[in-house]
Amino acid sequence: MVRPDELHSNSSPVSSTGRRNSLVTRLRLCRPFDTAEAHELDVVLSRHRWSLTSYHRNAIIAFRGDRYERLLVLLRGAARSEMNSYHGKRYAPAEHAAPCLLAPAFLFATENSLPVSIISTSDSQLLRLPRAAVLELCHIRPEFLESLMSDISDRLAALAEKLRLSRLATIRERVADYLLHLSELRGTRTMELPHTRQELAEIMGVTRPALSRVFGELADKGVIVYDRGDVQIIDLDSLLELVPE
Amino acid sequence: MVRPDELHSNSSPVSSTGRRNSLVTRLRLCRPFDTAEAHELDVVLSRHRWSLTSYHRNAIIAFRGDRYERLLVLLRGAARSEMNSYHGKRYAPAEHAAPCLLAPAFLFATENSLPVSIISTSDSQLLRLPRAAVLELCHIRPEFLESLMSDISDRLAALAEKLRLSRLATIRERVADYLLHLSELRGTRTMELPHTRQELAEIMGVTRPALSRVFGELADKGVIVYDRGDVQIIDLDSLLELVPE
Repeated sequence: MVRPDELHSNSSPVSSTGRRNSLVTRLRLCRPFDTAEAHELDVVLSRHRWSLTSYHRNAIIAFRGDRYERLLVLLRGAARSEMNSYHGKRYAPAEHAAPCLLAPAFLFATENSLPVSIISTSDSQLLRLPRAAVLELCHIRPEFLESLMSDISDRLAALAEKLRLSRLATIRERVADYLLHLSELRGTRTMELPHTRQELAEIMGVTRPALSRVFGELADKGVIVYDRGDVQIIDLDSLLELVPE
Repeated sequence: MVRPDELHSNSSPVSSTGRRNSLVTRLRLCRPFDTAEAHELDVVLSRHRWSLTSYHRNAIIAFRGDRYERLLVLLRGAARSEMNSYHGKRYAPAEHAAPCLLAPAFLFATENSLPVSIISTSDSQLLRLPRAAVLELCHIRPEFLESLMSDISDRLAALAEKLRLSRLATIRERVADYLLHLSELRGTRTMELPHTRQELAEIMGVTRPALSRVFGELADKGVIVYDRGDVQIIDLDSLLELVPE
């Protein structure tokens, strides 16, 4: 483990405007901060005790069991979160690419201990923003509140979908069920997928190449047509046959 | 299916104060509405087009695929939500007892189609409250915002725990892993469980009697001591042995 470098931290209410400026610019690239005006972010940052830390590859950003009291915003680089079994075996890893929030729901959970460890997978930079600053932004900027709520809700929906698909044994079954489910919810057979290929792979608990292989197979057989994020179901019956009782 | 009775609905901004009063009283029994003052709820209800519907047992409150555009608040009675496989098989049912919010995260999700059907399991009463009214309450009452966020976050945490435990085959393994995980997060072997027995059974995907049997077994062997919601781990090694690699 490499010791992180604490680049900046706002330890007093009066802090340099220059370094806040560059932080605000970077922060506005990240949902839900993109909904706020620069001057609003600047005011909130000037009032709260945030910190900005840089990590090398393989450094541990947060430990499982840590109290989650400040919002973790990955501003640069990439990270991985993972769970461990009681015998130290790692499973259910998830990848995170900057800019993004890390496990934001735990900031508000009653049981706010982090259930995963988060490891830096490249040189990265992390902002820790107090809960009170997040709530203040929700108050002064309703769009920020809506965007944060929608981010947390989307994560919950993805988790529910993952749980739904986890009862199915093969990747083919999972892809078929996912497409049928989405098609039913949308009421159409021509769909833009609401997830990137990487997110889809995580929801289905498979690797990206394995997922692409199944999409390729289904296309070769004429069951679906797909082009990047757009999928059309051609042969509904064949897709239904792939899903077990 | 029984046709529901639309009891009241606020179809004009001016609506009877009397029926709003009794609605406000009932609503304040339900998290997160318990954080707001009666007059605040009354003002918000007077401004928005809500509806109050009563259902008989076995009536369908909401269909899978419905757009979720108004918050569903179960004010009286009980309901069950369930998913269906592509061949109509039901699974992963969850029970909801009034007063409670039904699937609140979907109100803010980008993909806001309901992934479950919700069925009334007794005579029940449901309030449908527009998204704008919920956002207005968040704005005028920061405690409402925090409580709603924490409710949604707790649901996400429970789902993450359910997914974590779903990789384990037996109830005994799940109970052991759950207790070890909680003990590690809390940093103590004496714990108040953050879930009711019914919630725990749902998180572990088992029935309540089956769950109680395993708790009883572990107590008989001297592995744990428990009294209602309080659990103490006595024999850590035996608990660890129950969890597979």
